[in-house]
Amino acid sequence: MNYRRASRLLLPAGLFAALASSSAIAAPATDVSILATARAIFAPLPASAPNPDNPVTPDKVVLGKQLFFDARLSKGGTVSCNSCHNLATYGVDNLSFSMGHKGQFGGRNSPSVLNAALLKPHFWDGRAKDAEEQAKGPIMNPVEMAIPHEAYAVERIASIPEYRTQFARVFPGDKQPVSYDNIAKAIAAFERTLLTPAPFDAWLKGDAKALSAQQVRGAKTFIDKGCVACHAGATLGGDNLFKFGLVQGPYSKFTGVPNKDAGVYDISKKEADRDVFRTPSLRNVARTYPYFHDGSVWQLDQAIRVMSQTQLGLKLTDNEVADVQAFLESLTGTIPASALQLPVLPASTAATSKPDNS
Amino acid sequence: MNYRRASRLLLPAGLFAALASSSAIAAPATDVSILATARAIFAPLPASAPNPDNPVTPDKVVLGKQLFFDARLSKGGTVSCNSCHNLATYGVDNLSFSMGHKGQFGGRNSPSVLNAALLKPHFWDGRAKDAEEQAKGPIMNPVEMAIPHEAYAVERIASIPEYRTQFARVFPGDKQPVSYDNIAKAIAAFERTLLTPAPFDAWLKGDAKALSAQQVRGAKTFIDKGCVACHAGATLGGDNLFKFGLVQGPYSKFTGVPNKDAGVYDISKKEADRDVFRTPSLRNVARTYPYFHDGSVWQLDQAIRVMSQTQLGLKLTDNEVADVQAFLESLTGTIPASALQLPVLPASTAATSKPDNS
Repeated sequence: MNYRRASRLLLPAGLFAALASSSAIAAPATDVSILATARAIFAPLPASAPNPDNPVTPDKVVLGKQLFFDARLSKGGTVSCNSCHNLATYGVDNLSFSMGHKGQFGGRNSPSVLNAALLKPHFWDGRAKDAEEQAKGPIMNPVEMAIPHEAYAVERIASIPEYRTQFARVFPGDKQPVSYDNIAKAIAAFERTLLTPAPFDAWLKGDAKALSAQQVRGAKTFIDKGCVACHAGATLGGDNLFKFGLVQGPYSKFTGVPNKDAGVYDISKKEADRDVFRTPSLRNVARTYPYFHDGSVWQLDQAIRVMSQTQLGLKLTDNEVADVQAFLESLTGTIPASALQLPVLPASTAATSKPDNS
Repeated sequence: MNYRRASRLLLPAGLFAALASSSAIAAPATDVSILATARAIFAPLPASAPNPDNPVTPDKVVLGKQLFFDARLSKGGTVSCNSCHNLATYGVDNLSFSMGHKGQFGGRNSPSVLNAALLKPHFWDGRAKDAEEQAKGPIMNPVEMAIPHEAYAVERIASIPEYRTQFARVFPGDKQPVSYDNIAKAIAAFERTLLTPAPFDAWLKGDAKALSAQQVRGAKTFIDKGCVACHAGATLGGDNLFKFGLVQGPYSKFTGVPNKDAGVYDISKKEADRDVFRTPSLRNVARTYPYFHDGSVWQLDQAIRVMSQTQLGLKLTDNEVADVQAFLESLTGTIPASALQLPVLPASTAATSKPDNS
């Protein structure tokens, strides 16, 4: 793994300076100085999430949205991308673990698809580098969509004339436009449109009324206490890996749910990777409960308490927790209306493989 | 059961006259005479599907759509109305049997929710009188949404402040606005908006170009052969009960799939009810495969052959089957764009009961 790792010393570049300008300066800071500090740490959501290797074109987004909602990308025809990353509930299913093929439950909480195209790496253990690579995972995961091999998905999709026509138009240079790579590229192109600007962005851009006084206090607490060591930038996290239980562990002592998952360690078998997970983005966090890789905590205030104890060794006051929660609620954004318009999917044909739940 | 029953003699009122004006008159009939006959048998889709006991108001439709997409109406939080009656696939899931609570599969094919509010009775065995009564069934069915009792659903929905506010506004006279009856009423009000006008309606109303020559031939064949004995009116069926295997049975001999379901007999235990099912509406039939109560047949042409043999004792020619199929494709309608706009659901609270998949 080449991402920043679990260490109290390895704080993001520029963060010491930012913290210094915040905590070290004589309190109480004015709103203006908080804004200046916040601007040094965070960034407004960008207007787009481009990938030079997979240009976002209107036709590709239309196709990707259809595939995102199409349960034929699961062996049993019961699971679509939207089943676990439901756009009606901020790109998650609000379950600890998602239900996949034949009613099996997965072992890690489904993160939100919203703003996910901005994140690097993907998955709780950071094993995929971008949205294009991520999209290929669940389709072939035996407890998720359970497609047995790439050709199975490709043949099923290619059996549908409307899809063949669309793929040929969207990927004009390709000898075989309907390919597993292109299925993932189309889905990822749609996901690259799922950006959710929030009141916090308006505030960062200068609209002082976009946040309440409590939310501004919460932003200051969030900065001062050091939450920004992991949750910074435009996505407030999702761009690094840290140990869950960095200062106080094991994490299960604080969540109250047994620890069955060692994160990156389960891939690398290196002791330094034990309990290391990708930090989640905090965009829309008030709506993407339950929290953590194991969906063990349902209330945002409790999640704030767990995090401050395990990652910072701090016990926040009730007021501090309430302020931070109010700040995090300012990250609940607006889902693009176009993404919420359900596609009407093309019909299967006699050549389309049947849903298989055997 | 007070609905019309399995009998070759019990044809719909006016049908003998209609058939006489079609088959008995010297062939070949002109398009004009086919249209006149068709108008005597069918009717364009109405503009609305009212219920005096449950007025369709804009606020109620908004609320009903949210509930339709809300998986919290299932015990495990994994199944919404839309899971089995997916609007992206014409109100069905294109599975023989739907997957419900904890991955269990039901025993009967999920009929489309589109235009369903126009039908009487509901369910394959006709056990519910209208959409309001129907909506209550799957929520409490242990293999579908598995809510254990009415109060469980009511308490979960009432734990969400936005829902409480909406129910109070939508049902202003009620002492307890969030009630199981009102949940069903709101869902049914949304369903009453799911009408899908199709090319066939335009043709019935006088647009001669709305159907191809083959589709018009198919309409004539559909009438002449007697399919209209069960599939007439604005919904082309869905308003009566008939024996599957009326002329030649048992039906499994023709579908090729073992017969495990005796329809109304399973409720009444009367021999006359054996294999009696509610006739399905043929609206959007080209998109609502697989066919029959057991989802045993996947191709529309095969479904036409099975029906003509089991219900009419006829073996249609390949051309006749192709023409009827073309006619049935003219029943594929347009889903209202407003219904396809996914709602963003209100958040759960600490008081909301957790998804329970134990």
